[in-house]
Amino acid sequence: MNLTERQKQIIEIVKENEPISGDRIAKYFGLNRATLRSDLAVLTMIGILDARTKVGYFYTGQDVNPLVFDQLFAIKVKELMVPPILVEQTLSVYDAITNLYLYDVNSLYVKNEENLLIGVISQKDLLRFSIGNANAEQTPVAMIMTRMPNIITVTPETTLLEAGNLLMQHQIDSLPVIDLKNKQSVVGKLTKTHVMNHFIYAGNDSNHI
Amino acid sequence: MNLTERQKQIIEIVKENEPISGDRIAKYFGLNRATLRSDLAVLTMIGILDARTKVGYFYTGQDVNPLVFDQLFAIKVKELMVPPILVEQTLSVYDAITNLYLYDVNSLYVKNEENLLIGVISQKDLLRFSIGNANAEQTPVAMIMTRMPNIITVTPETTLLEAGNLLMQHQIDSLPVIDLKNKQSVVGKLTKTHVMNHFIYAGNDSNHI
Repeated sequence: MNLTERQKQIIEIVKENEPISGDRIAKYFGLNRATLRSDLAVLTMIGILDARTKVGYFYTGQDVNPLVFDQLFAIKVKELMVPPILVEQTLSVYDAITNLYLYDVNSLYVKNEENLLIGVISQKDLLRFSIGNANAEQTPVAMIMTRMPNIITVTPETTLLEAGNLLMQHQIDSLPVIDLKNKQSVVGKLTKTHVMNHFIYAGNDSNHI
Repeated sequence: MNLTERQKQIIEIVKENEPISGDRIAKYFGLNRATLRSDLAVLTMIGILDARTKVGYFYTGQDVNPLVFDQLFAIKVKELMVPPILVEQTLSVYDAITNLYLYDVNSLYVKNEENLLIGVISQKDLLRFSIGNANAEQTPVAMIMTRMPNIITVTPETTLLEAGNLLMQHQIDSLPVIDLKNKQSVVGKLTKTHVMNHFIYAGNDSNHI
């Protein structure tokens, strides 16, 4: 939803003159009130203005950033993804755990010699192995990782809503972002945290002041 | 943003008769077009209807669930929290890990004899301990848990936006929900997953069909 210039001007007029009647607002534009009726209805409906009978219009304090489906959900993965941490399949489970703390991440992606994605290791995979297994230093991550084609991936062009649905349905914490053409080439990583933070930032931006 | 009955009826009329002129819509109500101008402006602006010059109004396929700040962000924690998994402080690290898999959770809350919250154990705490420590069966969780007052908590009345900001700022996965009066009594748990899923459900509901 994009406000027109006139609607933005109405907001400014109400901010400085509240409470102000529709007639008086119309005079600022040299128009009659009927002409502004739609604009006032829209601004009242989306909650930027408040109308009180026989008093006039008030500014509610909500800023002009209404929530927009496109900005919240249709945004592409490429806008939010981060560079992936890629490790070799020969890396030991012990070193994989060290890497989790080093890079402060919850999962690692495993590549082969051609830099193609062959596996994913989650914190939970590592914990499951390390409990009751003393030889984390001798075991390569290739032994315990989830392998292609059992890895759920997205592309940079996937929408946030689609990606969020995949995270939700498959109960996973992260999605490798793969190249549109070369399906095993990892170009990014999108986690549940990125998705949540995106919504919280939007909420902070459109918050009532 | 709540649609009026007349706005909902307009949507139904357009759905069945598109493309349809404003004049023809007005006839359904026995009104003139000017009276409906605000309603049509609102419906067009929020994207439910599309207006094409000299053709008429179309239904865009977006359902009547526009995004509303209050529903998305002002919703209370009590609407989304789940029952917490509480364990004794004498539980072994080994059994704590078993509990993570048993209950399919990423963290456990630790209570004392009076059922009051005294600690939180995350998957990462358990992984850090289990790597290089063989005696997970002999070590109580009390040894490795994060203790009060270093635990970030919310109440059932905290808004989702506030809770999301806490999860984001403190880089944690879960928030114990404590009783408003008895500050150490845990009544629920809110995780990053609950917060993300809430937004994805909302996106699916208000999605363009």
